Amino acid sequence: MAYAIGVDIGGTNTKFGIVDKRGNIVHQSRMKTSDYEQVGAFVDDLYEHLLPLIQEVGGIEMIKGIGMGAPNGNYYKGTIEFAPNLKWKGIVPMVSIVQEKFKIPATLTNDANAAAQGEMMYGAAKGMKDFIVITLGTGVGSGIIVNGQLVYGHDGFAGELGHVTVIPDGRPHWGTGLKGSLEAYCSATGIRLTAIELLEKYADTPSPLRDIPAEEIDSKKVCDCAMNGCEISKEIFNYTGEVLGRALANFIMFSSPEAIVLFGGVTAAGDLLMKPTRYAMEANLLPIFQNKVKLIFSDLKEADAAILGASALVWE
Amino acid sequence: MAYAIGVDIGGTNTKFGIVDKRGNIVHQSRMKTSDYEQVGAFVDDLYEHLLPLIQEVGGIEMIKGIGMGAPNGNYYKGTIEFAPNLKWKGIVPMVSIVQEKFKIPATLTNDANAAAQGEMMYGAAKGMKDFIVITLGTGVGSGIIVNGQLVYGHDGFAGELGHVTVIPDGRPHWGTGLKGSLEAYCSATGIRLTAIELLEKYADTPSPLRDIPAEEIDSKKVCDCAMNGCEISKEIFNYTGEVLGRALANFIMFSSPEAIVLFGGVTAAGDLLMKPTRYAMEANLLPIFQNKVKLIFSDLKEADAAILGASALVWE
Repeated sequence: MAYAIGVDIGGTNTKFGIVDKRGNIVHQSRMKTSDYEQVGAFVDDLYEHLLPLIQEVGGIEMIKGIGMGAPNGNYYKGTIEFAPNLKWKGIVPMVSIVQEKFKIPATLTNDANAAAQGEMMYGAAKGMKDFIVITLGTGVGSGIIVNGQLVYGHDGFAGELGHVTVIPDGRPHWGTGLKGSLEAYCSATGIRLTAIELLEKYADTPSPLRDIPAEEIDSKKVCDCAMNGCEISKEIFNYTGEVLGRALANFIMFSSPEAIVLFGGVTAAGDLLMKPTRYAMEANLLPIFQNKVKLIFSDLKEADAAILGASALVWE
Repeated sequence: MAYAIGVDIGGTNTKFGIVDKRGNIVHQSRMKTSDYEQVGAFVDDLYEHLLPLIQEVGGIEMIKGIGMGAPNGNYYKGTIEFAPNLKWKGIVPMVSIVQEKFKIPATLTNDANAAAQGEMMYGAAKGMKDFIVITLGTGVGSGIIVNGQLVYGHDGFAGELGHVTVIPDGRPHWGTGLKGSLEAYCSATGIRLTAIELLEKYADTPSPLRDIPAEEIDSKKVCDCAMNGCEISKEIFNYTGEVLGRALANFIMFSSPEAIVLFGGVTAAGDLLMKPTRYAMEANLLPIFQNKVKLIFSDLKEADAAILGASALVWE
């Protein structure tokens, strides 16, 4: 049993691969999650896609198990529960369905936890026992490692750091209704909302962002504009970084991690995001925590990290 | 080796006791920490005080070790580092000094971690594997248990939840200079500052608190006034609870604890504090966390809990 299967279930795409013990993805492919109204049909097709890859490594006897990462995945229960970005509603007993089909052990966790597991085994946090992964994408997610173990909490739902309040009575979140949450500011959507706010606030300042329809503004476009000298775009990342850095300082005073690893599409902004984030983080820490915590970007390719992280659950 | 010694080192008093495996304090006593300019003299006298108690249980061979809780105690290093409320400045190698004197193993952690350990072994959190203890006293401290283990972080300083920012750019903390920290609102000092603010804000409203010099207002006096119907005093606890509840919601979304145990002098306010805290906590949680987390007061006597918690380190 020299291989593990890693499956990363996202709202749009599902990526999967066969991974050896050293973290080499020996085969990989993908399919469209959103094509499947029913989870049963999805798992049937996942099996059809994986079967030829499994044969290539010597058959199912060579596979120790299947690890899956999914939004709202619950490790204890093996279920995906009320995931807003998936078509399968309610509580989906994913682990049972997959074990039934594949006849090998399956494990499930949420996508950010899978990323943290991947970082610990193969990425920037290799060898660390205390760190936090923050995923900055469509949403803001987190995976927390304490004493070398993922923090699941008593019910399997720990690590929802995207939903902590950073600004009391601040910007309402479009999905949860909570006010001033981290995700409302530091996700791709949050950055778009900040862009709209700042374009209005500095109505007299020219910006190439004004040529883009509001609903099409995204982190990448703001980044491109900032690179070309747009002051409002730089201010958008300064503000995003300030909110993020304040939140990270709070997380540090909770679990005192060796590192915080930032992961996901928004990190493509590089120093535009990193500099204000680090500044605000350090400024809001007690002296005993200052200049100690490594704030780093993930160095795993995003698609790989998700598969590796999910497969890592199998070796655990 | 049927007994453990528990020592709770506070800024004013040090309480110590001999504890059996079931958590019975068979002998206990106390001494004044603040009488000792030098830590060496303190440990010498602690030994003199403990020696007769040790003889009563059959001599030093009956003692498995000494567990100590102290402000800014570092579990990994066995040191007390820069504790603002102790006379011993800089880095004090407490574990070495105690082991040298007593010739038995010694362990040290911070006072809130010791309280959490005590709650897990003998208190309200008995049998729980995921919970948080918040100590509400002169300061606000915390001890966090994840997977049945105290969270120390990579450097032993985890769990400084009194210093997380709850209100960005809020009330400055008298000691740290950080703005808007939990301790600045929910410690005894924080409650006094809220009282002063609200007495000014509602200058026309009569309150028995106005007869007390500002520097003598404390949580207990506010509580007494509230019990006698003072509206401003009730509002002081409503505000304190709102700030505390918001912070607790954030902590829950980090580690998803089964319970949060509130501990320390400020909890004497009972429902005056509990009701607004619970309300604000629930209102700021994602639905998956709502109506799940037990918010409870410690049921250990404060002096006992500290000794029990410190002694519990020995059995760990």
